[in-house]
Amino acid sequence: MSSASNSPVLETARRAREAAAVLAPLSREARDRALLAVADALVARTAEIVDANIVDVEKARAAGTAESVVDRLTLTPERVAAIASDVRDVVALPDPVGEVVRGSTLPNGLELRQVRVPLGVVGIIYEARPNVTVDAAVLCLKSGNAVLLRGSSSAYASNTALVNVLRDAVAGAGLPADAVQLVPGESRDSVKELMTARGLVDVLIPRGGASLIRTVVQESTVPVIETGTGNCHVYVDEHADLDTAVRILVNAKAQRPSVCNAAETVLVHEAVAGEFLPMALAALGEAGVTVHGDERWQAAAQGGEEQGATVVPATEEDWETEYLSYDIAAAVVPSLDAAVQHIRRWSSGHTEAIVTRDQGAARAFTARVDSAAVMVNASTRFTDGGQFGFGAEIGISTQKLHARGPMGLPELTSTKYVVTGDGHVRP
Amino acid sequence: MSSASNSPVLETARRAREAAAVLAPLSREARDRALLAVADALVARTAEIVDANIVDVEKARAAGTAESVVDRLTLTPERVAAIASDVRDVVALPDPVGEVVRGSTLPNGLELRQVRVPLGVVGIIYEARPNVTVDAAVLCLKSGNAVLLRGSSSAYASNTALVNVLRDAVAGAGLPADAVQLVPGESRDSVKELMTARGLVDVLIPRGGASLIRTVVQESTVPVIETGTGNCHVYVDEHADLDTAVRILVNAKAQRPSVCNAAETVLVHEAVAGEFLPMALAALGEAGVTVHGDERWQAAAQGGEEQGATVVPATEEDWETEYLSYDIAAAVVPSLDAAVQHIRRWSSGHTEAIVTRDQGAARAFTARVDSAAVMVNASTRFTDGGQFGFGAEIGISTQKLHARGPMGLPELTSTKYVVTGDGHVRP
Repeated sequence: MSSASNSPVLETARRAREAAAVLAPLSREARDRALLAVADALVARTAEIVDANIVDVEKARAAGTAESVVDRLTLTPERVAAIASDVRDVVALPDPVGEVVRGSTLPNGLELRQVRVPLGVVGIIYEARPNVTVDAAVLCLKSGNAVLLRGSSSAYASNTALVNVLRDAVAGAGLPADAVQLVPGESRDSVKELMTARGLVDVLIPRGGASLIRTVVQESTVPVIETGTGNCHVYVDEHADLDTAVRILVNAKAQRPSVCNAAETVLVHEAVAGEFLPMALAALGEAGVTVHGDERWQAAAQGGEEQGATVVPATEEDWETEYLSYDIAAAVVPSLDAAVQHIRRWSSGHTEAIVTRDQGAARAFTARVDSAAVMVNASTRFTDGGQFGFGAEIGISTQKLHARGPMGLPELTSTKYVVTGDGHVRP
Repeated sequence: MSSASNSPVLETARRAREAAAVLAPLSREARDRALLAVADALVARTAEIVDANIVDVEKARAAGTAESVVDRLTLTPERVAAIASDVRDVVALPDPVGEVVRGSTLPNGLELRQVRVPLGVVGIIYEARPNVTVDAAVLCLKSGNAVLLRGSSSAYASNTALVNVLRDAVAGAGLPADAVQLVPGESRDSVKELMTARGLVDVLIPRGGASLIRTVVQESTVPVIETGTGNCHVYVDEHADLDTAVRILVNAKAQRPSVCNAAETVLVHEAVAGEFLPMALAALGEAGVTVHGDERWQAAAQGGEEQGATVVPATEEDWETEYLSYDIAAAVVPSLDAAVQHIRRWSSGHTEAIVTRDQGAARAFTARVDSAAVMVNASTRFTDGGQFGFGAEIGISTQKLHARGPMGLPELTSTKYVVTGDGHVRP
């Protein structure tokens, strides 16, 4: 707190810390009122938001950005309305703050309660999509935290407009405007400063590409929650129902390949490889997937299937690649044990699935795979806060401390022990 | 895992990771059996342990180490027996592994369970006392983790002997010996290597002095749980029962000044300062405490009390000092709000206490103080895993992520989502 530095980033963090002190003891009612004001303001000031967004979109087009990326950057009145509607959904979620996680009366009469409290100041470092700006800010406010938003420079005008709207609405509802702040500066330096603001910022959550996340994890002295990288596996057991296995494999890979819970590797038990590989190649081919296969998969592709997937030889690099595209690495393994070993070695710890009818195989796989989520006879695509019924998601943690898997509102809190006595001293 | 480095420390971490994979799916029965074997072996091989300890003790005496430190280093047959008895107590504690933290059946029929699992590989960096070696290893094993122990070089012979006993006992019970390993090397370099073993070590817990903890927090790329620094406050409210306040203050400061939950600062509401300060000075003087006071406390000391505590002028440094001795910083504040501000600015976030008969004051203080534990009319000395009824403690976290306050067995676990369907795919 007594840092000599007067950088704009640290100044922002100091103001966030002061706002957090005001937010922490507020009632749910006060926080919800501010969030409803945010939803109203987004709708009322849509023109201002869309105008600012046009600046970013034109800049992106001028820079030759791919049209799919431009589309993700674009805000229309309909999209702003949808964002506002999402805000109202968050307001309706249960309040994590104040929940008594554990409580007891100790033998000496002391009353012990472990109570959920906000983390304090949450920093979110993210890329591209401006809807994340509102989404992240609203989840932080709902859980009683002040938020520092460090979005992509390609969305700077949109983010600035959105944060202005948010700050005005929050202040209008009687909360400190500094509960929501955009981190100043478009350069990487502002990220670096944020990463060293230990004592001012309680946690950093990077959301975006693997290189951004790696940088933050390695360089930050502020505690980090690692999110998102998903090198997910589907293991087809010797006792799998093969039609089910094909359906899950194609869904896990191709239903939406660009997201972290899409499958990137399929492992097949050798006892069913002879029957399964042709079925899988046909279905994957139909879905437009290229297979990066081991020798068995390469051989299967040459076995005369008329319209199966293209198979290219897999290298060791394929086992660790998160393609996020219509590509999948594929191998045949001699046993469930070998599948578990492969996964333990190469997985990013996000989600793995087993397809099997055998109870013992399911039990062994779920016990021994060390990932945030393990699916039995279900697609990896289900690892998601919305699908899990959390109603909201700030990211999917692939680390083991604090939060693992989809993070909802409770994961944006810490706890505090409140101990009440009547003059108790240690004997 | 594919690191090119062949350092002995990383090699140790790799073996720990392999051991962790074996430990994770084991039943409680198998883990408890190994821990009972450890308790038996400690008793059976006491002579070997005490002999090794004599080497450390003689080295410490030759180096002119203070006798109080030598005492903490010393292992006698009685102390070894007490350590073995503590191991049996841990065996009896509830198993955190496998607990279903959350569970539901989703609308689509998927069965969702969030299950406690071991963290994997836990690294403990600690100082001096060899009993921590057994204590930390046993808590990690009970919670299904492999442990890397990096103790003080001053206890190297003792730790080596203890770890040999532990490894033999664990292996004799059918668990991998590498579930318990001493990190090789006595230099600081081995700590540095441990801090960079991201991907091999899941968490580092430094236990010891402030400088050790600061180094680990700032330099480690492995996630860290910060423990122990306790700049704890006692606030005497305007509505305090002053006799209760004196009793709590003296207990918090002087019952055992060398520990992290001892009080280091007392703040007194000005409305009761005239009456309270002379009472406090008399009691603190009797307990042998030196007061580092603001002007009000200095003036009170000159007010004619015949045998009160010595009062020296407080400087700003006193507000942030963890004395761990018979010293206390002392100030008079104009309001509860000012007390909260002082605490928010200077506290290490460990434990703060309010003494008050006023319900509103208690409520405001507990809501607004941002520390791991807040005591109402009770001594700060109660922040302790044993006192809280956890049966064991690996340390007291002063950070907000993952664990806050005394850490028992559940805090040595992560969770995993297990999701079971019958061929579910995302529509």
